[in-house]
Amino acid sequence: MTNRSPDTVNLAEKLGRFSDHWNPRIVGRYNGNEVRVSKLKGEFVWHSHKETDELFLVLKGQLVIEFRDGVRTLGPGEFLVVPKGVEHRPVAPEEVELLIMDREGEPNTGSESTSALTRDTLETL
Amino acid sequence: MTNRSPDTVNLAEKLGRFSDHWNPRIVGRYNGNEVRVSKLKGEFVWHSHKETDELFLVLKGQLVIEFRDGVRTLGPGEFLVVPKGVEHRPVAPEEVELLIMDREGEPNTGSESTSALTRDTLETL
Repeated sequence: MTNRSPDTVNLAEKLGRFSDHWNPRIVGRYNGNEVRVSKLKGEFVWHSHKETDELFLVLKGQLVIEFRDGVRTLGPGEFLVVPKGVEHRPVAPEEVELLIMDREGEPNTGSESTSALTRDTLETL
Repeated sequence: MTNRSPDTVNLAEKLGRFSDHWNPRIVGRYNGNEVRVSKLKGEFVWHSHKETDELFLVLKGQLVIEFRDGVRTLGPGEFLVVPKGVEHRPVAPEEVELLIMDREGEPNTGSESTSALTRDTLETL
């Protein structure tokens, strides 16, 4: 516990500090989870997170999330929670900026598979 | 576990469904936490949440959060996490719309105190 006033985090300022895709940065911590921001463009890999739900909140652009039984499209101001264990694949036809929440330390492709896009050690901005 | 595609939640659409202040609505669930939206205007009460961090993400307006040792002001696209146990008081000189996260079932004034503004049973939209 601390009584120092917590810092205010400006999402656009954090997003302005990098330009690469599929490489989330940690910008906050909440109840054992990480608040992350990321830029996406193109197709990700099919994966699931066995031990954590995953929250996607779109800030800019249109994010497509494919599921085994359907597709969702999210624009700015829209969010979706992928329950733990549910396979999904994010696709960004054009660049997307978003806020993501995962449990602390969770790799972006889940804890049980890896790909060329796997990031299991994230930078904190 | 389910394989039904999760629903997309539009924050503005949810906020358009009510107009009262200091009465958060639940719009999603993530890892044992609730994603809530609320409208604030005026001064809240000093309180803390003993068992949960609390995340404030401002969507519209300017939110002031007073702490015992300082003040933070958040505008749209800015967030702040109040660590568990830290006393704080939200103040909205003009109407503010925001996303809040708390653990499931947490009253808005914390679990150890009540006031006329306490909401311990929240509607799900």
